[in-house]
Amino acid sequence: MVDYDEIIKLSLERGFYFPSSEIYSDAPAGFWEYGPNGVGIKNRFMELWRKELVRKDGMIEIDGSQIMSKNVFKASGHLNNFSDPVIMCSKCNHTLRADKYINEKIGSDITEGVTNEEIDIMIKRYDLLCPKCMSKFNSSEKFNMMFKVEIGPNKEEAYLRPETCQTIFVDFSRLFKIFRGKLPFAIAQVGKSFRNEISPRQSLLRLREFYQAEIEIFCNPNHLDKLSKFEELNGTNLIIEIDSQVYELSAEEAVKKNIVPNKLIAYYLCLLTLFYEKTGINMKKTRFRKLKDNEKAFYASIALDFEVHTSLGWLELVACNYRSDYDLKQHSLLSKKNMEVIDPENQEKILPHVFELSLGIDRSIYAILEHSFFFDDQNKRRVLGLKPYLSPITVGVLPLTKNQEFESISKKIYKELIRNFDVYYDASGSIGRRYRRLEEIGVPYAITIDHTSLIDNTVTIRDRDTMKQDRILIEKIKPFLNENLDF
Amino acid sequence: MVDYDEIIKLSLERGFYFPSSEIYSDAPAGFWEYGPNGVGIKNRFMELWRKELVRKDGMIEIDGSQIMSKNVFKASGHLNNFSDPVIMCSKCNHTLRADKYINEKIGSDITEGVTNEEIDIMIKRYDLLCPKCMSKFNSSEKFNMMFKVEIGPNKEEAYLRPETCQTIFVDFSRLFKIFRGKLPFAIAQVGKSFRNEISPRQSLLRLREFYQAEIEIFCNPNHLDKLSKFEELNGTNLIIEIDSQVYELSAEEAVKKNIVPNKLIAYYLCLLTLFYEKTGINMKKTRFRKLKDNEKAFYASIALDFEVHTSLGWLELVACNYRSDYDLKQHSLLSKKNMEVIDPENQEKILPHVFELSLGIDRSIYAILEHSFFFDDQNKRRVLGLKPYLSPITVGVLPLTKNQEFESISKKIYKELIRNFDVYYDASGSIGRRYRRLEEIGVPYAITIDHTSLIDNTVTIRDRDTMKQDRILIEKIKPFLNENLDF
Repeated sequence: MVDYDEIIKLSLERGFYFPSSEIYSDAPAGFWEYGPNGVGIKNRFMELWRKELVRKDGMIEIDGSQIMSKNVFKASGHLNNFSDPVIMCSKCNHTLRADKYINEKIGSDITEGVTNEEIDIMIKRYDLLCPKCMSKFNSSEKFNMMFKVEIGPNKEEAYLRPETCQTIFVDFSRLFKIFRGKLPFAIAQVGKSFRNEISPRQSLLRLREFYQAEIEIFCNPNHLDKLSKFEELNGTNLIIEIDSQVYELSAEEAVKKNIVPNKLIAYYLCLLTLFYEKTGINMKKTRFRKLKDNEKAFYASIALDFEVHTSLGWLELVACNYRSDYDLKQHSLLSKKNMEVIDPENQEKILPHVFELSLGIDRSIYAILEHSFFFDDQNKRRVLGLKPYLSPITVGVLPLTKNQEFESISKKIYKELIRNFDVYYDASGSIGRRYRRLEEIGVPYAITIDHTSLIDNTVTIRDRDTMKQDRILIEKIKPFLNENLDF
Repeated sequence: MVDYDEIIKLSLERGFYFPSSEIYSDAPAGFWEYGPNGVGIKNRFMELWRKELVRKDGMIEIDGSQIMSKNVFKASGHLNNFSDPVIMCSKCNHTLRADKYINEKIGSDITEGVTNEEIDIMIKRYDLLCPKCMSKFNSSEKFNMMFKVEIGPNKEEAYLRPETCQTIFVDFSRLFKIFRGKLPFAIAQVGKSFRNEISPRQSLLRLREFYQAEIEIFCNPNHLDKLSKFEELNGTNLIIEIDSQVYELSAEEAVKKNIVPNKLIAYYLCLLTLFYEKTGINMKKTRFRKLKDNEKAFYASIALDFEVHTSLGWLELVACNYRSDYDLKQHSLLSKKNMEVIDPENQEKILPHVFELSLGIDRSIYAILEHSFFFDDQNKRRVLGLKPYLSPITVGVLPLTKNQEFESISKKIYKELIRNFDVYYDASGSIGRRYRRLEEIGVPYAITIDHTSLIDNTVTIRDRDTMKQDRILIEKIKPFLNENLDF
């Protein structure tokens, strides 16, 4: 069974990801880096997202600032609402996230919306003390999870964005105008967001600095069932959980039975499903889970989490929120800019509503790694069975043995491929060991140059999963790779 | 003549870039966003950089955290040295960058390394007052240009990185080991850096949050002239300015005449030159300028700036610094981790030296836009003559007139192309106006569907620069585009 520790081991040893500033013992937790193999898979994952969601649906994509003015977060509600309750020891200053600590100690199930008064009452009632020095806690406080920065010598207050989508909301009017928008109008963005988590944990799964790929779909709330392109995708199979009841049915049925509230939401759940199908995640182990009212973010009126089952349990990869006109209304009010638009198709002047697909990139990468990794016990192999178009390295070039003639042909092949493909040249160690190295980082193909190559200009090309080897002409390598990278 | 204002106008109107949080009047200066066309050109620019530098040279690429621990910048010297002198008015608190203000008022040429004492003496001697309220200044101060953030409830001190390369230095040991490094060993990274500029200005040219693409080349300082791959590039033409004297010569000659100090540096200047040649920047208007001692960053022992001439004068795009072992030594000392490695080729145990290519992405994009834009007076066109492989949109699909049959074929063509290309469908307005729109955002090809299309399955394909139109079969569009996107 592949578990979290196995993936961490792979990641550290083979350069997928590792802790940031790790040479310093004081390096803060919750910050990780992508190594070369991690960058490879992440960049390819983003290209797949662009192809299967952004381009396919005709969305536009922006890339905005991470530092944004205080007013943005005053309007968005993050200044007031984006906080966790904390308790600090009166003696040693040890600080804990209050709700989690209480749940852990008394086994209750207090929810994220608990008030500070309620926490203080429970701390007192159950006589909870600091786990480090057994002293009493001070009164609980709200801890805002945004990172504050001060700009310029006059120290203007600003914040690192806690979600990328705020950029999209404040830029909406300009973009709608330039691109002569029709509704629904979808704007996408990939970038970093920052949350000052009290207890970051588990490498890529709860980071303080993380990658999001967010899509905000601006729509006319009066016509959520008027979407002709839904017909192209309405046969897509969706798995939806509502109140512990699981439904597996076509998108068309889901709308008919009111399991998904409208065609617009159903359409984008289909697009997302079709995208994840191509990542190699086992779709049988996924679901859209409808959140209960006390689980939803403060801006969401309908919320479905796309979750995937891993060795750590269910993991949220994408938050699909119907944010209504919450954000545009708030920004309109505070900026005093009217953000209404004309819906050209229906000739109505409206403030658009928003449905979003807020995707966590780092967690998705983790889930792909876990679902792709397998032990081939029969052949004693550890294999990362990545889709060829997601593999950080497409092909290994291996001279069979340390032999000048083999190496000279191998280097020539390497040079010809490297301009267009990610290629790994490896001449050291036994051929078996070199295959193992490639398999463990997901390289789908290995080319070996041997005696026969000297005679007839062929090489063997080996498939990572089947271990089958075929001989092909050197000039056929490029077309072979191009064909197998397409999807 | 294309000038800065023309490029800004284009950028704002056509969605290349625009100010961040612009709906709020209090939005801080120095933050800009890439709109959809800007994202397109930026992503393609990065792909070109990966192809022509990272892949071609066999470098590895990482993507690390932007927030880093205090110790990183204690070691790197940024906590002490990365500051500008400021003066604040004793009455109205108006704050200015001291050296720039003095230079402006008294026309002198004081350098970046000026001390606070020297500044105070000059302020007094020339009786300089606050330009806003004519009051006296307080004593000058050092203003550190890093943004500080506080992590977790215990407020651990950390900083947003002012250059991406520090990530590479602190990760060096792990990466060298995993990837069984040989020297020179080059690590690349693309990402955001942050500098709390006192006076940000000119859109993409001096930002507080900006994109860098940095390459750090770790090398053995005893063998900087032992680099066999230099021979592959030594015929490359380099333009180098030293003490106002301009040399234009081959890389080989430049090393021979000691204009470039060694083959390693010369080799990477060649790679960089060959890369920029492909961006469409007019290489006749570029130079490597050797910096004087008082112009260099505090960590650089040799510094050459790659500069390009624009309507604003010479603009630095890439800082090429020989940082010696400054960074690894400092990080070794403070972290108490030995960062020496064995150079396998020379069997020497050394602390590697570093030569870097620190590229400013945003400025490069600006320079490409300015060098690519032209007025075609004869035909009254404003044309962004981007290289096809850098254009945000590759092809426009245009039904000749509003005609159902034309539109139905056009939409079919659009759908077939959109999976693999960036395509713009446009059916509104006269065909001439639609061509103008495409030309202004750099779309190299436009396909028009007309009466003949209905008869023989052909379309016209129009070249942006020559305005020449050819008829081709619909099935030949994809191969045509693929061929013309290659480089």
